[in-house]
Amino acid sequence: MEEIKSVAIIGVGRVAQHIATELYANGVIIAGIFARDKEEAKRLAAKVKSPVIDKLGKRIAADMILLAVSDDAIQEVAEELGNQKALVAHTSGAVPMSELPDTLRRAVFYPLQSFSIDKQIVWENVPFCIEAENDCDVNALGGLAERLSNRVFVLSSQQRKTLHLAAVFANNFGNLMFEFSEELLSKGQISHEILHPLILETANKVLMQKASESQTGPASRGDIETIKAHQELLGTDNIYRQVYDLLTGEIYKRNHGKEL
Amino acid sequence: MEEIKSVAIIGVGRVAQHIATELYANGVIIAGIFARDKEEAKRLAAKVKSPVIDKLGKRIAADMILLAVSDDAIQEVAEELGNQKALVAHTSGAVPMSELPDTLRRAVFYPLQSFSIDKQIVWENVPFCIEAENDCDVNALGGLAERLSNRVFVLSSQQRKTLHLAAVFANNFGNLMFEFSEELLSKGQISHEILHPLILETANKVLMQKASESQTGPASRGDIETIKAHQELLGTDNIYRQVYDLLTGEIYKRNHGKEL
Repeated sequence: MEEIKSVAIIGVGRVAQHIATELYANGVIIAGIFARDKEEAKRLAAKVKSPVIDKLGKRIAADMILLAVSDDAIQEVAEELGNQKALVAHTSGAVPMSELPDTLRRAVFYPLQSFSIDKQIVWENVPFCIEAENDCDVNALGGLAERLSNRVFVLSSQQRKTLHLAAVFANNFGNLMFEFSEELLSKGQISHEILHPLILETANKVLMQKASESQTGPASRGDIETIKAHQELLGTDNIYRQVYDLLTGEIYKRNHGKEL
Repeated sequence: MEEIKSVAIIGVGRVAQHIATELYANGVIIAGIFARDKEEAKRLAAKVKSPVIDKLGKRIAADMILLAVSDDAIQEVAEELGNQKALVAHTSGAVPMSELPDTLRRAVFYPLQSFSIDKQIVWENVPFCIEAENDCDVNALGGLAERLSNRVFVLSSQQRKTLHLAAVFANNFGNLMFEFSEELLSKGQISHEILHPLILETANKVLMQKASESQTGPASRGDIETIKAHQELLGTDNIYRQVYDLLTGEIYKRNHGKEL
């Protein structure tokens, strides 16, 4: 296959909607939409001038079938597809390509982005991680991804698993740190907006240098007095204190080569 | 005092240099620079057309004396100042105003920013937290801060302590999460640039909604299979796994109302 010109989409969740709309806007033919919820399928199909696929199991006339369903539904839905000539890709960061039945031409088309808010996505910045079983399919998939984004990466299932884990640290855990800071400010009756510039700066620095080179604060300086004052302020037996002690100990160790 | 027109600066570290330069650029007279390192003092003084203060203990002719020294030097240096008519402010987030001798007109002038890299600071976005002993000094200090920044906050020493702690969570610990993610990617031989858009998005979301509303990922979804796969990938007895378990448990509890 030289070029993917038409895509059928299974699913009507956030990822399905975002990708369907964006592919359509970039001139890709949406060859069909399938979902258990027929009303939702009709609504999305209307937006991207696509037919609705009534049920799975028949041959779908498309260059690619995109399984934009939840991780635990991928295997089941892929099996329901039956025999297909099209390339079949799922959109998950955590699921290996090998979970798709090996009777299919298997692939992965994973946009690394957090789709949690109802805002415009700047697609050209979204990294796409792709995988397929042969170079020809990788190239075709890469061509499709490049219609949406400037950042296309070919990753193995194992690498994608590592990436997904790294993303949990950066995104979910980073966000939890921001959440803790908002809660501490709220208890002190301080507007959380006061921290916004620092949060932006924290993220922006990572784009310019290694995170380890950006580290500042009492633990990296070895300022024991301030650490003690923070611990006293936090009290004991709460999640803030547990996290504070674990992460402060780690930063101290990294910067001073010994335990705090 | 109605307006602070001249400032003497004690210290030649990063904060001292940044603030001296920026005050000078905004038309404030730099009335003197003091540092133990005379060469450094001369160099900074030349940049801001200021005399060098040879030693402490004499009356300094300035509306304000700024102690931009490390936290543990503030008290000692303030005592060396002796009797002063000028407002005396330190620049620390962690040190209460009361650590300055009560013979002085005490104040705090704390820019909440991470000054770790040699890049231009967008001062108008830097939050300034100010504190003084009476309304008149607060107003004068506020006027000075507003020459540099659009974000001026009057905070008590107790509030500033809480803010400083919250900043450790957001900046130091947030940065450590980014550091962990870079290390995991490096082990998987994956370019860490692939995570940059997600890191920026994580920070940008906090500006638009509460961090708790932005949370995504396996722990918040309750996706036990993915959590198990991540734990297996991390192995045991390492800091990544310790942090993963603690933070995943907390996110799960917050989203599902029970222990993982």
